[in-house]
Amino acid sequence: MFDEIFIAGGGLIGSSIARALRHYNRAKKIVIYDTDKDVRARLHALDLADVCSSVPDKIEAEIVIMAVPPAKIAKLAQTLMPVMKKGAILTDVGSIKRAVLDEIIPYVPEDIIFIGGHPIAGTEESGPEAGFATLFANRWCILTPEDETSFEAKRLKAFWEGLGSTVSFMGADHHDLVLATTSHLPHLIAYALVGTATDMETVTQNEVVKYSAGGFRDFTRIAASNPEMWRDVFLGNKDAVLEVLGRYIEDLTALKRAIRWENGPQLLGEFSRARDIRTRIIDAGQECKEPNFGRDKS
Amino acid sequence: MFDEIFIAGGGLIGSSIARALRHYNRAKKIVIYDTDKDVRARLHALDLADVCSSVPDKIEAEIVIMAVPPAKIAKLAQTLMPVMKKGAILTDVGSIKRAVLDEIIPYVPEDIIFIGGHPIAGTEESGPEAGFATLFANRWCILTPEDETSFEAKRLKAFWEGLGSTVSFMGADHHDLVLATTSHLPHLIAYALVGTATDMETVTQNEVVKYSAGGFRDFTRIAASNPEMWRDVFLGNKDAVLEVLGRYIEDLTALKRAIRWENGPQLLGEFSRARDIRTRIIDAGQECKEPNFGRDKS
Repeated sequence: MFDEIFIAGGGLIGSSIARALRHYNRAKKIVIYDTDKDVRARLHALDLADVCSSVPDKIEAEIVIMAVPPAKIAKLAQTLMPVMKKGAILTDVGSIKRAVLDEIIPYVPEDIIFIGGHPIAGTEESGPEAGFATLFANRWCILTPEDETSFEAKRLKAFWEGLGSTVSFMGADHHDLVLATTSHLPHLIAYALVGTATDMETVTQNEVVKYSAGGFRDFTRIAASNPEMWRDVFLGNKDAVLEVLGRYIEDLTALKRAIRWENGPQLLGEFSRARDIRTRIIDAGQECKEPNFGRDKS
Repeated sequence: MFDEIFIAGGGLIGSSIARALRHYNRAKKIVIYDTDKDVRARLHALDLADVCSSVPDKIEAEIVIMAVPPAKIAKLAQTLMPVMKKGAILTDVGSIKRAVLDEIIPYVPEDIIFIGGHPIAGTEESGPEAGFATLFANRWCILTPEDETSFEAKRLKAFWEGLGSTVSFMGADHHDLVLATTSHLPHLIAYALVGTATDMETVTQNEVVKYSAGGFRDFTRIAASNPEMWRDVFLGNKDAVLEVLGRYIEDLTALKRAIRWENGPQLLGEFSRARDIRTRIIDAGQECKEPNFGRDKS
């Protein structure tokens, strides 16, 4: 049980952390700081935590979590660190780690411990109403501490485990490469597909919408995520994204050639690999088995 | 109510048609023909219809549906047409229309009416056990009749409406271009992503599986569909697929350049478009609103 947890940013992730802390009874006091008046009013209405409109003179929390888009983290950290109590942990929930770390580290005081964090959870929705208490349950949370054996690394690990997550430690650079592969590239190719489909002059947008059940709709879900956040992610993880994107375009071009040359065996070989990976993801509990996520069995 | 419906192929789609015909009470007699002994045994166990192992001497059905992969349709049609009764309708459920039409049309007898069909429904599962009675409910079914005003076009339309679908008529070429955009391209880019992710030598397959909730898992669902069927689709709709794939690679390359040049406004503009399309798909009833398809709100 923590005495106080301070959350900066009351959107999908921040509000879900507050809900989860209550749901699992992990904190005596929860404070959410948000600069947006409208978001604060909605947080008040949801009654998830104490809400404040500016950085307090003194933050008593043992853990301070920055749940804001990556590009806003460094500036926010500089306003929070001077008022945090000695020995407290500052962390974030952003999808990129190296760029943020490089921006923050020069400013971290001796008595504050900054540890990058990234819960691999979320939905395509945004805002405080979109959050829910079990968002992090049975999901992985990656932490990128300088020293994995430190008291604070263990404490932050226990924090996330208390919300139902399983914690992995890894370096910031490796995190960025892994996520470029499993998250950033998938989002980018989904955004590109939505663009291509809506720009076809021979197929109407109405047709794209009507016949989306053939595959397209799955892509629009992840392409509906917060656009500002994703812009920050791609700019902040530029090198890793360009690396995996370059490989992806190569692979896609190879499939294009196989289609042009009508190379059936090559296509069949590529397509057959995918089922194994799918089975492994379901076995690992990161997906449900129901066909179509159970959507159509109404 | 039809007197008899004959279904060739007892997999996901064929068995779902049999289930739906029973569920909505649309046919007095249902016969499924399948050449695979194992599939026949499973169909018997499921008790969905009469099951036969070879083409009967005479098919009494008013409608004969070929629910087999696209590459097998033309040959199958040639064995069915000679034994169908006069005035009966022969149709299919394949994802490509022009190539199949061109193969079949020269062999269609005067007293048989062939109409291409394509229910925009399915899951990533295969086989008779994967089917269910409401697979076609609230989904679109595209028919590509020579004459949209004919008695048979209207009859086949009524057949699909009886299973809960809404029917659209369009030309075979336009169907192939629309589906290349909304279904074939999405599947191809999902297959390519699974390939790219599993070939990264710096990211382990274990990591790809563990952190798949960040976006990757959505792609593995559609990449888990029947590999043989998809090979046939890409070879059978080569021109349209190469056309949309070429545009897609251009769009992806433009996003790559925007990242390299750190063009934030361009990225934000591209990403913002996607939400509108998503909203339209939900409004059109082709997707559910629940974040993450409700998977995580356990």
